[in-house]
Amino acid sequence: MTIDPIDLAKALIAAPSVTPATGAVFGVLEAALVPLGFTVERFIDGIEPDGPVENLLAVRRGAGPVHFGFAGHLDVVPPGVGWASDAFVPEIRGNLLYGRGAVDMKGAIAAFVAAAAATPVEAGTISLIVTGDEEGAAIFGTRALMEHMDARGVRPDMILVGEPTSVNRLGDMMKIGRRGSVNIWIDVPGVQGHVAYPHLADNPIPKLVRILAAIDGVTLDEGTDWFQPSNIEFTDIEVGNGATNVIPASARARLSIRFNDQQTGAELVEMIERIAHDVEPRAKVVGKISGEAFLTPPGDLSALVAEAVHAETDIMPELSTTGGTSDARFLHALCPVVEFGLPNATMHKLDEAVAVADLHKLAAIYRGVLMRALLD
Amino acid sequence: MTIDPIDLAKALIAAPSVTPATGAVFGVLEAALVPLGFTVERFIDGIEPDGPVENLLAVRRGAGPVHFGFAGHLDVVPPGVGWASDAFVPEIRGNLLYGRGAVDMKGAIAAFVAAAAATPVEAGTISLIVTGDEEGAAIFGTRALMEHMDARGVRPDMILVGEPTSVNRLGDMMKIGRRGSVNIWIDVPGVQGHVAYPHLADNPIPKLVRILAAIDGVTLDEGTDWFQPSNIEFTDIEVGNGATNVIPASARARLSIRFNDQQTGAELVEMIERIAHDVEPRAKVVGKISGEAFLTPPGDLSALVAEAVHAETDIMPELSTTGGTSDARFLHALCPVVEFGLPNATMHKLDEAVAVADLHKLAAIYRGVLMRALLD
Repeated sequence: MTIDPIDLAKALIAAPSVTPATGAVFGVLEAALVPLGFTVERFIDGIEPDGPVENLLAVRRGAGPVHFGFAGHLDVVPPGVGWASDAFVPEIRGNLLYGRGAVDMKGAIAAFVAAAAATPVEAGTISLIVTGDEEGAAIFGTRALMEHMDARGVRPDMILVGEPTSVNRLGDMMKIGRRGSVNIWIDVPGVQGHVAYPHLADNPIPKLVRILAAIDGVTLDEGTDWFQPSNIEFTDIEVGNGATNVIPASARARLSIRFNDQQTGAELVEMIERIAHDVEPRAKVVGKISGEAFLTPPGDLSALVAEAVHAETDIMPELSTTGGTSDARFLHALCPVVEFGLPNATMHKLDEAVAVADLHKLAAIYRGVLMRALLD
Repeated sequence: MTIDPIDLAKALIAAPSVTPATGAVFGVLEAALVPLGFTVERFIDGIEPDGPVENLLAVRRGAGPVHFGFAGHLDVVPPGVGWASDAFVPEIRGNLLYGRGAVDMKGAIAAFVAAAAATPVEAGTISLIVTGDEEGAAIFGTRALMEHMDARGVRPDMILVGEPTSVNRLGDMMKIGRRGSVNIWIDVPGVQGHVAYPHLADNPIPKLVRILAAIDGVTLDEGTDWFQPSNIEFTDIEVGNGATNVIPASARARLSIRFNDQQTGAELVEMIERIAHDVEPRAKVVGKISGEAFLTPPGDLSALVAEAVHAETDIMPELSTTGGTSDARFLHALCPVVEFGLPNATMHKLDEAVAVADLHKLAAIYRGVLMRALLD
């Protein structure tokens, strides 16, 4: 049975699924998987505002000893205004298939299915781990799927996440890890007053400035073989004082740290808190860790994916840990994980589009990955 | 002819006059002054949003050689919500007269009139310089009055501004000058981007932090015999970036400097600009000078006011230059100016109130000032 990844991608795009997603788009995927011999389980988790989220686990047991997992998401970011054609009406113009999710990552999901369809059942076990919330809070998404897999005893030996990792050409980059990410809020309390009578007030702004100046001077690390140096960015300062003659009652800053595997989110929050408390013991520091850094050190999995990429594109992909975070940060707890997918130039943008030839080639690469993983 | 300052203060309070003020409240004052022999001129100046503003100039020519001016304002700050009784219905409860403007400064205006009524016409020339916009932008207030006085050839030899300068008890403080005031905005431009790709962005916040840290380290002066040290307060920082993963495109801070007569507003703006440009040459620095510092060095005027205060209260007032600014900053260009008035504990607050006894005493002090100024 053959699956045309273009046709399936079109059908998936035509089912709008702005994050968090449930419903029709999962029905389209299920309808494609069941005839291929997959056992499909769909369940909905979570409540507003971070849910409800639909998740889908599809498993096709094979004779071979290896269990290979494909992971991804069917939710998409909002289309925004200004598309040349309807974002949810897939349309091929020239060599490109346009539609929200074409690249990130309904195209890759379609390629997973096409690759599985082209792989003999007896080769080994294949699973698809597909969530409806990767773009949003991701609270009821892949983590819920992993609990579900644990309850069912479904545990792949290796996983490929189909995020769009290629940069300029299909095949030029795969990811073997990601930096961690933490947002930290620093709140400095003060005592409001009139600028003419500063001795009756306690201005929080100079204290916040001293805290931020101290943080500005911190070098976290020099990077590693696989990671660039951890980086602190100030992303906001807010005082919100409209009156020119008033000393404000509080001042707040927010910073974002993208960090490598030499750091942990909790240690970074503690460090920022220490710096803040050195200046103002009453400062309140709150951290929200989006994900810890993780790495699948180069090995069998990255080698077989790179070979499959090279076989179809003549390119040896760079092994990278750059960029934002992905659900690989959760899946990494199960087994070795790499990420490989389409060129990401149009992801999250207006007129998101995938080259028709790239999508066919991606399905072939994924099939090459399966064959190497299951049979070699 | 005798004027009861309590009755007149009540009549003035009963004519609501939230800044900028025109109309009825000036009619009340005019009606009190004309029978005392004052020539009253009222005129309206300015347009929205800083106008229209009514101003009143009243002059009573006397035989003596000295011309003494009383200056003040009939506009009031908004009452706010939560008064025990209607802010514009004067009410005596216990020993206090309640109402918006009781202290700042309809009470003092009433005391001016009572003092003039109790002073022989032949003693000398008395003028009342009364604006409807001291609390607001003050663009069409006392400055317009001064142009009007100039055109009429009205020029006092000395002026007392009736602002509420007393702190704990009537008579404990008078002002012989005021600090200058300048607000300065610092805008640091940057290039927006994603926190995961800082090399593609240019974060303006660390630059702003460095600028503010440098300003935080500045000591402007040590003060003088009559002035406290000049003081810089940061009053706001604004970035306005809601997205935790975005490096913002610009960052802005605002500061307020209250400065003594060792500084000028223009020099301070230049200094801040220099500091900002040392860090980021593209930073934009804008200053708005509310007023320069001024001083009427202790001399005849402050001595005679202090004597009049002491005669009625047994207190020798402290000669101060502390606190906010007042219209004395304009009038100072004409002649020596001091400020003396009621205790300021309830000014600009809910349930603003003056002690009935204080208002009688203030009228007596102002009469003592007139007698000493005109006859000694």
